[in-house]
Amino acid sequence: MVSIYWCRVAVAMLIGGLTVKIDAVDFFYLSMPEVLDIGDGSQDLLLVRIVAGEYIGWGECEASPLVSIASYVTPMSHSACKPVRDSVLGQPIDSVEDIRRIGDQVKANSLDLLQADHTLSGIDMALWDLLGKVQQSPVHTLLGVKTAYPKRPYASQLFGDTAEDTFRLAQAVRQDQYTAAKFGWGPFGWGGVADDIDQVMAAREGLGPDTALMIDAGTVWADDLTRAQGRVDVLKQCEVTWLEEPFVSGAFDAYRSLSELARPVALAGGEGCHNPWQARHLIDYAGVGFVQIDAGRIGGITSAADVARYAQQRGVTYVNHTYTSHLALSASLQPFAGIANNEICEYPVAPKSLALDLTHERLDRDEDGMIHVPDRPGLGMSIDIDAIRPYLVDVDIRVRGQTLYRTPELTNS
Amino acid sequence: MVSIYWCRVAVAMLIGGLTVKIDAVDFFYLSMPEVLDIGDGSQDLLLVRIVAGEYIGWGECEASPLVSIASYVTPMSHSACKPVRDSVLGQPIDSVEDIRRIGDQVKANSLDLLQADHTLSGIDMALWDLLGKVQQSPVHTLLGVKTAYPKRPYASQLFGDTAEDTFRLAQAVRQDQYTAAKFGWGPFGWGGVADDIDQVMAAREGLGPDTALMIDAGTVWADDLTRAQGRVDVLKQCEVTWLEEPFVSGAFDAYRSLSELARPVALAGGEGCHNPWQARHLIDYAGVGFVQIDAGRIGGITSAADVARYAQQRGVTYVNHTYTSHLALSASLQPFAGIANNEICEYPVAPKSLALDLTHERLDRDEDGMIHVPDRPGLGMSIDIDAIRPYLVDVDIRVRGQTLYRTPELTNS
Repeated sequence: MVSIYWCRVAVAMLIGGLTVKIDAVDFFYLSMPEVLDIGDGSQDLLLVRIVAGEYIGWGECEASPLVSIASYVTPMSHSACKPVRDSVLGQPIDSVEDIRRIGDQVKANSLDLLQADHTLSGIDMALWDLLGKVQQSPVHTLLGVKTAYPKRPYASQLFGDTAEDTFRLAQAVRQDQYTAAKFGWGPFGWGGVADDIDQVMAAREGLGPDTALMIDAGTVWADDLTRAQGRVDVLKQCEVTWLEEPFVSGAFDAYRSLSELARPVALAGGEGCHNPWQARHLIDYAGVGFVQIDAGRIGGITSAADVARYAQQRGVTYVNHTYTSHLALSASLQPFAGIANNEICEYPVAPKSLALDLTHERLDRDEDGMIHVPDRPGLGMSIDIDAIRPYLVDVDIRVRGQTLYRTPELTNS
Repeated sequence: MVSIYWCRVAVAMLIGGLTVKIDAVDFFYLSMPEVLDIGDGSQDLLLVRIVAGEYIGWGECEASPLVSIASYVTPMSHSACKPVRDSVLGQPIDSVEDIRRIGDQVKANSLDLLQADHTLSGIDMALWDLLGKVQQSPVHTLLGVKTAYPKRPYASQLFGDTAEDTFRLAQAVRQDQYTAAKFGWGPFGWGGVADDIDQVMAAREGLGPDTALMIDAGTVWADDLTRAQGRVDVLKQCEVTWLEEPFVSGAFDAYRSLSELARPVALAGGEGCHNPWQARHLIDYAGVGFVQIDAGRIGGITSAADVARYAQQRGVTYVNHTYTSHLALSASLQPFAGIANNEICEYPVAPKSLALDLTHERLDRDEDGMIHVPDRPGLGMSIDIDAIRPYLVDVDIRVRGQTLYRTPELTNS
């Protein structure tokens, strides 16, 4: 009898020790005191804290914090339109499979809640961070990566108002020792072909011949192949690595035609994808050579890693899309950390103070100008609670007189 | 001098008379007292009221009212992540082109706000309703429709737990004089092939040979063509009109392969599309024969009509997806009212009382069992304010101590 008793105790302890359940999911809306009407995505962020037993994981959702908070707490509309919370709270989180299962539940139970994919993104990141801390393993190791390769950050710039301005900006990038740079938006695509040729040539001249140059058209030609065509020759001549978002993301026919005309210059796109299927379609039907994934939008690290694997099978290069904090940067590097020849990464070159203050650690460039994925447990970033407290935005959502959300206390536990 | 003076007055009056500006956009979250965990989308709704001068238009967003309200009022994150409000309030609304312009603004200014497409959907409907009232014209006439054709409603049913149950349900549909019926979900696809064969045959037998039969697989086979294949023969044998959502909506390869195997049975899908591009991709790459569009999700009537036009060009049949009120039903019929051979329409057969109480008018079947698009101005439906007041949900959203949204008074003005 005694031996059976102790067997039971041992089994109970084993189960108890292995099973970690999600006790709390908290959202913190952080913002600069003033948000400007400019294309700088680092002006606010939605931080996610997940507590499971003694462990804490942190993640970050891209864009519109209030709306993602609402999708976590909203009352159910029907069986396929539930609040994200219903699929997450109380779930066991012992393995990589648990993270995928939780994500699949969110996608099924919140199928008709459009914002849910963005909300899931931050939750998924926090779950990977948490599981990494439980297992004392960096996220990329949990993802099966044997060797995490350094990434080459590119400096992302707006085109200058004139080609002369662009030339000076490009020179500054070179002086700052970036070995890759992207120019985009501004006047590009809006004026005549000659203006755009001048702009691209100025960027190349300013960077010199050895720095990789990417051009971001910011969907300026909607779905009009003809308008894009006139720019192809200068892109080839200036050895541009990729032309990003020449068209709106759904214009697959225009993308595919341009991808053939522009070779060897590749097309790039995908930052808006909110599930892996959309990224696959860009690869399969739009002919992109680079697929750009924001782990804070696509459903988190799990979905981003699915895209990285698929891209590799199809000979397409995976690139992160990251414009905010170094927590988001660490999360966004994990999915392609193990792919040696997918080297270029987006790097937030001049984010707002909020994004820099978020973490104690930063992923700075080494002497060769490269970025290294942290090899600390989880995402390898700790939150600087005191530094970010001044950015915390007080939110209160009440439905039928009941408080569904109130900004929680910002602590490390 | 007098004549110049009067000219100026006349021009000013003319301009003043022609220009209507959006003065107010109000959201009303309406819900049944209790929302059940069932696949019934009529348990809540988000009503949109737009006031422009002396005119009022009404629209309806599909699913998760709180989240769509939040996306209307949320603080800006950056220049491409603005609250929907910023692109709508104060805009002139004199023509169909104005409605499209407002929608395009929302899509550009709220590009990174995922929920914005659902929010826009109700706003777009309300704008069409309002413009129709200004111009004393039904929406389908504004859309260029010369003749609005009646539509054949199908009765949408869940499969019974057993084939015998399904047979009885099908008999009841026939007795209720529907000439088209859809069976879906329930046990279908989860068990063995033999069970599914029994179910489909029971549905056909119960309906008799002359009633159109559609089958909804509810994405049960994810992206697994093999599992779907075994059901193809019985679908052909029972002359099924369409097989709906055999796979998740992104699984284009599986869709396309099955669409070839299943001929002459067509595949159907598209209810989750939140922009017209996604519907085009289902037509171009997934091989659907029927594209099912929810005007309350895809961006409203404007986007839905774009899909209807594209589908017609490609020989694909357009069908509405409608599960809520007769206001939403009127809106969902307008985009394909003029396409005579796109006859079948989804019809909310047994919605909750909220959906029926919303409007004074209902789109009931005529003696031939057909539904007629209203030929009254706008959407042709008036809101029964007194009837719906008990369903009104009180919502209060505060950010930094400021009220961003508070449920407004529910009135007709």
